Amino acid sequence: GRLTMGSMGQFRPTRSATGDLLSATSMRLATFYSRSRKGRWCKGETSGHFIKVLSVHLDCDRDSLIYVGDPIGPACHTNAPTCYFTTLKREEDGKVREAGTHTSRAESPLPTLFALERIIADRRAQAAVEGAKPSWTAKLLSNPELLCSKIREEAGELCATWEEDEGRERTVSEAADLLYHAMVFLNHQGVSLEEVSATLRQRFAISGLVEKAARKK
Amino acid sequence: GRLTMGSMGQFRPTRSATGDLLSATSMRLATFYSRSRKGRWCKGETSGHFIKVLSVHLDCDRDSLIYVGDPIGPACHTNAPTCYFTTLKREEDGKVREAGTHTSRAESPLPTLFALERIIADRRAQAAVEGAKPSWTAKLLSNPELLCSKIREEAGELCATWEEDEGRERTVSEAADLLYHAMVFLNHQGVSLEEVSATLRQRFAISGLVEKAARKK
Ligand SMILES: [Zn+2]
Ligand SMILES: [Zn+2]
Ligand SMILES: [Zn+2]
Ligand SMILES: [Zn+2]
Ligand SMILES: [Zn+2]
Ligand SMILES: [Zn+2]
Ligand SMILES: [Zn+2]
Ligand SMILES: [Zn+2]
Ligand SMILES: [Zn+2]
Repeated sequence: GRLTMGSMGQFRPTRSATGDLLSATSMRLATFYSRSRKGRWCKGETSGHFIKVLSVHLDCDRDSLIYVGDPIGPACHTNAPTCYFTTLKREEDGKVREAGTHTSRAESPLPTLFALERIIADRRAQAAVEGAKPSWTAKLLSNPELLCSKIREEAGELCATWEEDEGRERTVSEAADLLYHAMVFLNHQGVSLEEVSATLRQRFAISGLVEKAARKK
Repeated sequence: GRLTMGSMGQFRPTRSATGDLLSATSMRLATFYSRSRKGRWCKGETSGHFIKVLSVHLDCDRDSLIYVGDPIGPACHTNAPTCYFTTLKREEDGKVREAGTHTSRAESPLPTLFALERIIADRRAQAAVEGAKPSWTAKLLSNPELLCSKIREEAGELCATWEEDEGRERTVSEAADLLYHAMVFLNHQGVSLEEVSATLRQRFAISGLVEKAARKK
């Protein structure tokens, strides 16, 4: 059947942790067809954990939707931030093992920079283990003067790939250096990549409904 | 039913654009149940556009999988890189309009930095339009000396947020500044964020099967 957007934004939630936010008329909330309830179900209508929809994308044969949104609270009924906290791994003997629990993000699928953010946090945690050989990441975290001098150095090295015409391979490598050291700095400052991403989304009006609604006011 | 990984890696494709790559025994290829064919279907077995699976994630109630993978060629039968090239937008009058075509990525859902990459490319294209007021992005692209001085400046400003104890809000803002200017630099050098991400994945052994297989050799 043809998909319509009729199921979006028509719910007036009766309770939520952030009531005034959800009563904004510009708000769209992720809504699904529930097979068990045999009807429309606005995620969050019982838990308060709504998902604010920023944009809706339809696939080529019109049988699948992606909601891009900001979750209000955990997305999963287990209180995990995502339902996909389990990884399937095949062992040497061909058997499938499951890894991951709803209390850890270690096995969730993540874009590369978010995975890197997690690795940096892991190395910070490992550094606290007695007798562990400190990683380069842990060394940088314990020495912010060194970290800052590396950030300045890598920024300069990135620029030099153009200034000295070193070629695009060097640009890739130096950009990776700079991103990594900037990510370690974010961990040191207790800042998440998501906060930086949210700032960029706001500055560049990325992803759609919320910013457009805001501009109208 | 309980999901198993039995459907992974059991296909030996008979033809492909990159035959030697696909004949590697460590390769896992994304495989689906096809309702129309009523059987297992290895995406790419007719088109050659396989998807190399890096990791497999299972949701909390075990009825949905995410494959994280590297596509070999376009993912969609329309030759688009993604099937989700259509955005649904609701107009003032409540009607739903569709935007996007399979030849453009403008409406595809993307992580923030990839969306920013696209915006930078758009501004570059707009700068070529006669009479258009050049954006700050276009100005930077036409003046790489300025761009490099900005990258060094923003790296210094990021470090200063710790050195001068300016607080985490400033760290978020300066990190956004630095990321934006580094992304403009990548565009100037003709380097994609995906190349930088791939380098980081390789360095940090992010996401899973492929790197692990490589380490065994
Ligand atoms: Zn489909
Ligand atoms: Zn869940
Ligand atoms: Zn659930
Ligand atoms: Zn260096
Ligand atoms: Zn470097
Ligand atoms: Zn499920
Ligand atoms: Zn498609
Ligand atoms: Zn500045
Ligand atoms: Zn700045």
